[in-house]
Amino acid sequence: MADCRVIAVFVTVCCCMSAAMADQPATISPAASDIQKEKTVALQHTTDSLTILMLLGLLMLTILTVWLFKHRRFRFVHETGLSMIYGLIVGVIIKFIYATPTPSVTPDDSKVWAVLSNNTNSTFYSGNAPPTLYISLPDSKNSTDNQTFKYNLTSDGSAKPEPMLEKAVTFEPELFFNVMLPLIIFEAGYSMKRRHFFKNLGAIIMFAFIGTTISCLAVGGTMFGLTRLMSYTEFTLNDCFFFGAIISATDPVTVLALFHDLHVDVDLYAIVFGESVFNDAVAIVLSGSVETYGQLSGGKKFNAEAFFKALGNFLGIFGGAFAIGSLMGCATALITKYTKIRDFPLLETALFFLMSYSSFQTAEVAGLTGIVAVLFCGITQAHYTYNNLSAESKDRTKQLFELTNFLSENFVFLYIGVSVFTFQESRIRWDAGFIFASFLAIIIGRFLNIYPLSFLLNLGRTNKIGWNFQHMMMFSGLRGAIAFALAIRNTSTLPRQYIVSATMIIVLATVVLCGGLTTPMLQWLKIRVGVDEEMEMQQMPPSNAVRSEPGDPVEVPRTKGKAWLVAKWYNFDMVFMKPFLTNCRPTLMETLPKCCLPLAKLLTTEEQMTQGESHRDNDSDTDMIIDHSQLSIGESELSSIPSNHAENDTSRKLPMQEPETYDLGLGHNSQPMNLRVNLPGPTGDKV
Amino acid sequence: MADCRVIAVFVTVCCCMSAAMADQPATISPAASDIQKEKTVALQHTTDSLTILMLLGLLMLTILTVWLFKHRRFRFVHETGLSMIYGLIVGVIIKFIYATPTPSVTPDDSKVWAVLSNNTNSTFYSGNAPPTLYISLPDSKNSTDNQTFKYNLTSDGSAKPEPMLEKAVTFEPELFFNVMLPLIIFEAGYSMKRRHFFKNLGAIIMFAFIGTTISCLAVGGTMFGLTRLMSYTEFTLNDCFFFGAIISATDPVTVLALFHDLHVDVDLYAIVFGESVFNDAVAIVLSGSVETYGQLSGGKKFNAEAFFKALGNFLGIFGGAFAIGSLMGCATALITKYTKIRDFPLLETALFFLMSYSSFQTAEVAGLTGIVAVLFCGITQAHYTYNNLSAESKDRTKQLFELTNFLSENFVFLYIGVSVFTFQESRIRWDAGFIFASFLAIIIGRFLNIYPLSFLLNLGRTNKIGWNFQHMMMFSGLRGAIAFALAIRNTSTLPRQYIVSATMIIVLATVVLCGGLTTPMLQWLKIRVGVDEEMEMQQMPPSNAVRSEPGDPVEVPRTKGKAWLVAKWYNFDMVFMKPFLTNCRPTLMETLPKCCLPLAKLLTTEEQMTQGESHRDNDSDTDMIIDHSQLSIGESELSSIPSNHAENDTSRKLPMQEPETYDLGLGHNSQPMNLRVNLPGPTGDKV
Repeated sequence: MADCRVIAVFVTVCCCMSAAMADQPATISPAASDIQKEKTVALQHTTDSLTILMLLGLLMLTILTVWLFKHRRFRFVHETGLSMIYGLIVGVIIKFIYATPTPSVTPDDSKVWAVLSNNTNSTFYSGNAPPTLYISLPDSKNSTDNQTFKYNLTSDGSAKPEPMLEKAVTFEPELFFNVMLPLIIFEAGYSMKRRHFFKNLGAIIMFAFIGTTISCLAVGGTMFGLTRLMSYTEFTLNDCFFFGAIISATDPVTVLALFHDLHVDVDLYAIVFGESVFNDAVAIVLSGSVETYGQLSGGKKFNAEAFFKALGNFLGIFGGAFAIGSLMGCATALITKYTKIRDFPLLETALFFLMSYSSFQTAEVAGLTGIVAVLFCGITQAHYTYNNLSAESKDRTKQLFELTNFLSENFVFLYIGVSVFTFQESRIRWDAGFIFASFLAIIIGRFLNIYPLSFLLNLGRTNKIGWNFQHMMMFSGLRGAIAFALAIRNTSTLPRQYIVSATMIIVLATVVLCGGLTTPMLQWLKIRVGVDEEMEMQQMPPSNAVRSEPGDPVEVPRTKGKAWLVAKWYNFDMVFMKPFLTNCRPTLMETLPKCCLPLAKLLTTEEQMTQGESHRDNDSDTDMIIDHSQLSIGESELSSIPSNHAENDTSRKLPMQEPETYDLGLGHNSQPMNLRVNLPGPTGDKV
Repeated sequence: MADCRVIAVFVTVCCCMSAAMADQPATISPAASDIQKEKTVALQHTTDSLTILMLLGLLMLTILTVWLFKHRRFRFVHETGLSMIYGLIVGVIIKFIYATPTPSVTPDDSKVWAVLSNNTNSTFYSGNAPPTLYISLPDSKNSTDNQTFKYNLTSDGSAKPEPMLEKAVTFEPELFFNVMLPLIIFEAGYSMKRRHFFKNLGAIIMFAFIGTTISCLAVGGTMFGLTRLMSYTEFTLNDCFFFGAIISATDPVTVLALFHDLHVDVDLYAIVFGESVFNDAVAIVLSGSVETYGQLSGGKKFNAEAFFKALGNFLGIFGGAFAIGSLMGCATALITKYTKIRDFPLLETALFFLMSYSSFQTAEVAGLTGIVAVLFCGITQAHYTYNNLSAESKDRTKQLFELTNFLSENFVFLYIGVSVFTFQESRIRWDAGFIFASFLAIIIGRFLNIYPLSFLLNLGRTNKIGWNFQHMMMFSGLRGAIAFALAIRNTSTLPRQYIVSATMIIVLATVVLCGGLTTPMLQWLKIRVGVDEEMEMQQMPPSNAVRSEPGDPVEVPRTKGKAWLVAKWYNFDMVFMKPFLTNCRPTLMETLPKCCLPLAKLLTTEEQMTQGESHRDNDSDTDMIIDHSQLSIGESELSSIPSNHAENDTSRKLPMQEPETYDLGLGHNSQPMNLRVNLPGPTGDKV
């Protein structure tokens, strides 16, 4: 700290007392000053409440409109798009109302600026400390230009007046990252249809990890080229890759909600879902790694050491977060299995909620990515813990996360809409050329992600990803909340401010346009909708290969070479993990070798022993590693399926219909059965 | 703003760069400065996460311990007391770990302080603005003493380093007032057993309004006398009454949870519940009014004008908030009745939640008390809207608010525990004498509240409040979260800092001691427990006095004079409000005069028409104005009761038992039937 030299700066003080203060005498008593502080706090409080109320009102309006649209079966605007459009409208209104900033905070208003000089007779004393201090520091490049910094009084925690407009839009990205995002991502993991997810795991990992990296590099490279071409010299290569990383996070909300409503082909759903959920996590880690790389390399030229450090950073963060999330899920499973907390559903739900959320915070404390942790925690909770919960807690947890997810999503999109017009001007830079370039870049990035990887995947897949699926995946590369939140997290430099505006417009355009055009696009690409997942699953062969004789390893359904690891894991899961962590049959006493019987007995609860056969494998993902080639067997075995698939899915069941029209997305489905769902009006009676 | 004169102060700058910064050269590049900022932010983020994680861990520990206690039927420590004790322990640990503040923020560390002089050559430039600025201002009384104020850089929203200890306990009271408290109070209103509440409404209003005011005045007066006696001259009369107001808020959490578990006498439960819920609201408004009075009167001598202004303030705030809350509840009822949003339970629940919360924010924006609004909104929602909700939404809303309430309560008590040792030292002043005086004052205040008012009430009541009930009410005057939050909201003056410490200790002592001794106390006072509310209600006469012929005014059960207003309201509610706002029978077509038939038809939904007779009056409060004298009829009519009371209460039902042992709390119940519930062990099998 010896370096903090005695320096000289031009210091100006703005006494941001509220308007009511203006006619007070200069030497007010301390008591009056207290009252003044309280008044300022009260004014502040009212402004805050007004902002919250405005957002609440907008959310309610969105909900009512969404209801009306659902009621009228109008499906061209999704709720997220709607939130954003409402937000835009309100943003314009706010902008209009508060168009002229209050004079008390304008830096060049001479009345409210005062030069501080040294130690001469003061009328400012401790009872009257100005709540806001503006300090003007010379610019680093041009010492005649000054830049102004604002300081708020914090030591007594009272007064923090800010201009109305700024207040109206002050949304801490931390609130999003620490509260809303975990809720959204946990819900994604918790409500995941694991069967199809695991069936397409290879493709999902390919798109999420390799694809997002390709997209990041392609967007970064394109942006670097274009910024050089258009002479935005502020942009370093690192800035470009940072933009590539944040803008590669596709949104898991809008398209998937539509896919879900339309009951789109399950494989397409699984791939798009898996990609968008994972690539949020990948993009968050990737953008962090790019920043790390930038800090290590100095941001100018390629630095191999920094690159590998960033890569190691990426892998370490991902692996660590995965471990934390899974372990926390397992810990919850153990607690819910070995205590009788299920007798008190409220306590159980509260514990479940807290354990899940603490996986996020644990990862953050460890310097890892909470999002990845919470995603895997959600998957683990659904896979193991869910089996141990009481019936009431199952409902409670599902409904709780559904609701919080719904509110968080809509809040975030609403906020994005409001921000476009009201984002603090000092933190955003609008430039049409840059925005145009970034649109070009993301199209190139998405193109280089989807088509080459699909080609590679199709080499190894029996169930090929058809052209129509590829086009649809290209089209469903919407950008959403995560890209936005990553962009506004740091707006300290000029390139970052360009990035904020570009990200806003990209999110807006993709969500409103692509979101709105999803239904026509599905129709145009002849992708089947109205798929009954129950039906689809019944086309699979039964998977009751688990034998109940104790000690014997479980026989795994036949699989191909690439699924070997998955099959091993499946075996381990069936023999050890599930019997150990859940109250499902078979018990450890049935699956472990005889030598471990005492231990197995210890780890088997009474609940588990008294569990009927109907509880065997009741979480519907025993067939998660069934190879796609087996799907062709399906129909002939339709009648031999036991009923255990149907009894655990509580979602609305569609009537059996036209099983002979199912194809596997291999090519063009010429039957126009999807037509009747897309059109608004009473004919679309399926949703 | 002309008063913001050009002044001179001694300005010192502390460049609170983190320790890693210490060995950097003085002229660092902007990029490095950015990195530094990011590092500071990252460190801050980790500290925040650690704090949250600690609280999460404590909450989980509390839940597990609570479960264990419930499981083992150990009832001497309630969960709130437990939270607080855990909080205390962790507070001590934190205090121990962070005992020595980090040197970088100590104002008298010469290295980190730099004198700013005027406009000479600067090495500080805009890329390198110090994140924290310390400004030393001369004391108002003694100009040679300086007081130091801390300013944080806020304009770019990045760096806010603070000492670890301060961070670890920074709990915004605003978070409590804006998020947790509304949830707690709404739940209180929403889950209220309205039958007994309305039956005892007179007593409740008496205790809540008159009693709290008496308590406020008595505590204030006692404190004024004692502070004069012990020569705490800083305390003005106004400070004393402020203390009286905040400490008069009794806690609705701990005792009631125990009463609920023990199924204590319904009348005692209703009075204690009603008093504590209302008096939170009264205390909040009262403390605001005392502050208003203080500001108007100057805080020294009695000022009639200010007094009446404060009184008008009180009445206006209470009335306004009541109106807003009720109207918002009615609005929700109308929306849920006249739209088909019930087809989408998720949307319905979200709307319900947002409407309820916006009643709070609307009241706050209007300058009223959100708590009062949200309480009445909860009551209205339960009375009207609940009838219109889909079955799934009924469950969802109940469970959601139950969970959020549980988590909020425990969080708050946990935080109180942690605060005792870790509250910022500059905001608290410990003094044994003052704390002792305040204990004396609250006992006097509670005494003057309960016994005289009970005497007055008993003059008019047929169902007298017995001595044992009075002692129990005296004993259950626990102080909790609201008193604490009101105390820490403003700690700017010395008296307020004394008040914080006294409030903390009072909360701690009453919750742990009185909470823990509730069960023995009930036993000692021979207050009957294990009362089956279902049974109790069946002792009342049937209230199906509503005739279904259209146009006729509804006949109201016979009532006494004092209940005239209530009876009028009951009639209006049955004839107009319920048919208008809910889907319950009878419809408006049945209750309104024939001339209004077209209007009535318009306001009657299809749902309502097709509603069976079983839905008639299914929210179990039709008999809310039954006079106490009617209770004596009860037993003889036991067999003539229709089943509509029993079918809507989903809570666990107790087996019928010993109906002949019920008394009405009039005197001493000599039967020791409560003994078997209090004892830990398998005999207490009722909970």
